[in-house]
Amino acid sequence: MGGIRERSSQGQQIYETKFRVRYAETDQMGVVYHSNYVIWFEVGRVEMLRQLGFTYRDMEQQDETHIAVVDLRCRYKVPARYDDLICVRTRLLNVRESLLRFGYEVVRDTDELLLAEGETVHLVVDAQLKRMKLPEKYLSAFLLAAGQNS
Amino acid sequence: MGGIRERSSQGQQIYETKFRVRYAETDQMGVVYHSNYVIWFEVGRVEMLRQLGFTYRDMEQQDETHIAVVDLRCRYKVPARYDDLICVRTRLLNVRESLLRFGYEVVRDTDELLLAEGETVHLVVDAQLKRMKLPEKYLSAFLLAAGQNS
Amino acid sequence: MGGIRERSSQGQQIYETKFRVRYAETDQMGVVYHSNYVIWFEVGRVEMLRQLGFTYRDMEQQDETHIAVVDLRCRYKVPARYDDLICVRTRLLNVRESLLRFGYEVVRDTDELLLAEGETVHLVVDAQLKRMKLPEKYLSAFLLAAGQNS
Amino acid sequence: MGGIRERSSQGQQIYETKFRVRYAETDQMGVVYHSNYVIWFEVGRVEMLRQLGFTYRDMEQQDETHIAVVDLRCRYKVPARYDDLICVRTRLLNVRESLLRFGYEVVRDTDELLLAEGETVHLVVDAQLKRMKLPEKYLSAFLLAAGQNS
Repeated sequence: MGGIRERSSQGQQIYETKFRVRYAETDQMGVVYHSNYVIWFEVGRVEMLRQLGFTYRDMEQQDETHIAVVDLRCRYKVPARYDDLICVRTRLLNVRESLLRFGYEVVRDTDELLLAEGETVHLVVDAQLKRMKLPEKYLSAFLLAAGQNS
Repeated sequence: MGGIRERSSQGQQIYETKFRVRYAETDQMGVVYHSNYVIWFEVGRVEMLRQLGFTYRDMEQQDETHIAVVDLRCRYKVPARYDDLICVRTRLLNVRESLLRFGYEVVRDTDELLLAEGETVHLVVDAQLKRMKLPEKYLSAFLLAAGQNS
Repeated sequence: MGGIRERSSQGQQIYETKFRVRYAETDQMGVVYHSNYVIWFEVGRVEMLRQLGFTYRDMEQQDETHIAVVDLRCRYKVPARYDDLICVRTRLLNVRESLLRFGYEVVRDTDELLLAEGETVHLVVDAQLKRMKLPEKYLSAFLLAAGQNS
Repeated sequence: MGGIRERSSQGQQIYETKFRVRYAETDQMGVVYHSNYVIWFEVGRVEMLRQLGFTYRDMEQQDETHIAVVDLRCRYKVPARYDDLICVRTRLLNVRESLLRFGYEVVRDTDELLLAEGETVHLVVDAQLKRMKLPEKYLSAFLLAAGQNS
């Protein structure tokens, strides 16, 4: 499930992906354990790539291009709960030759309540974790999604 | 495993806890998946509490005091790998009546290489997730650990 | 995503649910870490309940009925890989007043290759983990799904 | 933490490893989510190897020998809870040239209460997941640990 929602203010495309909270993701406070939002950000990133016409699987396997997380930030507003239908809204905040910055909103789908928001910064690296430039096909698509003029 | 290491510069106590990377924590890049550091921060917090003479279990069960994460930050330096002996160095950066800020360093124990560092901010809440003041016994111990004059 | 597929041989309804393998679920062998199939079984159970007209959330909250795992079995055939579209086929193998036995097939959706299969046995318990009888509305629906005459 | 406990009845060595339940491992029932026991079995296996003088890291990296799970069984007796000190008692039930069967008891360390028990069966495979024979140094050590005459 998912789709694209244009946002005009900064020209960035917003990509949505939806899934339900798993029981395994809850903790004894009765809410989702906070590290799971980090995994949800990854789900958002991956589905954004798919909606851009790529898969991260091919990016790794065919183009030996990996994006390694170097910085993570998450602000928690309202706890997600078991069986909630979650919508992750992902966008590219910044694109450079070997660096990507993604932004995320985690929303409860039924009432659009913002549960959490965050950012991740990634270096583009090869299989040996050495920094490299994004292959051109990704770079141009990412610049477009980020609303940047290349 | 763990212990206390005084740090003079800011008067904060540093609490260490050690454990090995589990196979389950790796991903197909051959390194630890990045959300696991967030769980390691929690392990560091909990063992810090234990070294202060409390358990978070009692804090929740007996004193109905929970500390809910509201902000998370992690900067990744060098990837942890399977079977590495990890040392998490935890300290209290800031203590207020109903807010705690922890800092963490994740270090590879064999050579003291810094793998990641981060901070979390927590609100003190009751079982219904409503904000409350820290019970006095915790507050005074936390202030001491943070090197703050109450 | 999901749906019902009748299977005539034993009269059990088979309920399907589909999702993609997350990067977080892989390990350094380049395949899905084996404990994740256990979580996928749970996803299959929960979606089966939903297709039966219930939610496990309501079952717990409104009817204080929990189903606690007491036995787990999984046989691994072919490893699932990152980004595979997975289909879990769940069915009720056996229903008794306070015991449920589920069966699962984990299939790669693109070519219907069987990746793993397993069973779980659950006791019906209340919030204090004490054994109880299934409320009538669940029992009758479950017996029907299991193809059992009550 | 851990150590060896001889068990005379079947001549198998029992290897112990201990750790605390993490908050992340609990679920909203207030107990440990059941898939985590499967990860604990892995911790038990790995620490057993270490006590035998090997590391699974070297086994994979230096000897390109992997042990892939093909069968898993777990019986849950009493739920583990947050902060419990857990002891996993691991032993080799059966050793063949390219197959290993491990048995596990998960015990609450404070009162030796049995929480769960299980078995896993593993094929010995190379990095391409093709079946291979155990290198001699492992085979002889494993046969000894299993109390088998080779």
